[in-house]
Amino acid sequence: MRTVTYFVANSLDGFIARQDGSVDWLFMDQDYGMAEFFGTVDVAVMGRKTYDKALELSPADVLFPNMERYVFSRMKSKSESGAARFVSEDVETWTNRLREKPGKNIWLVGGGDLVRQFLQKHLVDEIVLTIHPRLLGSGISLFPQPYPETELELAHCRQYSTGLVQVFYRVK
Amino acid sequence: MRTVTYFVANSLDGFIARQDGSVDWLFMDQDYGMAEFFGTVDVAVMGRKTYDKALELSPADVLFPNMERYVFSRMKSKSESGAARFVSEDVETWTNRLREKPGKNIWLVGGGDLVRQFLQKHLVDEIVLTIHPRLLGSGISLFPQPYPETELELAHCRQYSTGLVQVFYRVK
Repeated sequence: MRTVTYFVANSLDGFIARQDGSVDWLFMDQDYGMAEFFGTVDVAVMGRKTYDKALELSPADVLFPNMERYVFSRMKSKSESGAARFVSEDVETWTNRLREKPGKNIWLVGGGDLVRQFLQKHLVDEIVLTIHPRLLGSGISLFPQPYPETELELAHCRQYSTGLVQVFYRVK
Repeated sequence: MRTVTYFVANSLDGFIARQDGSVDWLFMDQDYGMAEFFGTVDVAVMGRKTYDKALELSPADVLFPNMERYVFSRMKSKSESGAARFVSEDVETWTNRLREKPGKNIWLVGGGDLVRQFLQKHLVDEIVLTIHPRLLGSGISLFPQPYPETELELAHCRQYSTGLVQVFYRVK
């Protein structure tokens, strides 16, 4: 079955962005395993705010190349275009139906409400964090509460000479 | 000069204990570099609640062997004994005075208020996290807000076959 992987970059203190959504502190000097990961997925799913913020950085086909993009939203996005499909369905129903179709894996990109719902419904199979050497002090949380206690299994970890640590976990 | 090292075990989602202070989820099957670290420090400093909770687990001379123990407290602790000295002085004044005395390094054990004060006053030189493969979902925060944005430098990271990842940072 297709796995759902929460693959995200964060500060050591567990934020994925500053409070205003900015990610100027992210290391962009090299690929950090993104291309390798992109080869394993063909669906990207995210919340609306995450999608809007992402599009401020780059066009969808650069950020989410060669994959279907789904944006969970209770309302229509300002950024709506042919580049993504907007979904207002129940997260669990949508994910389970998608998982049963043939295909590569599913990238859970982010979005506080959406990540919380995925964790609450036990829909996340893998967590991959790219930990940046910085305390932001405040910002948007990597793991937005509440969600149940979740046991993980470390698959492996990678250290980059620039100071990034990448940790790969499977949800038990 | 003596460095201050915040050396602590945490869940992947950034908690050092459950909300009630319990740490039953910590891996205790091996040393995980504790003895090596203990060889580098001769002072342990912590908040009162952390000290009280620690003494529920083991006596002070087992938990903090061969080191002076200082407990920051606005009030006298129920656990007060000859095993620790209680301090109500300003954290910055106390730390700077201690750093100028000869000796080994200083272990910042924990305690939300105390860690926040150390971060706010830029008194932390090193951060070592022993990341456990688990999301707790809620609990006592590893980095209690607010504190300023802080740039770090990765010294190294270690992976244990049991699934722990240990990351060593210097504060820039």
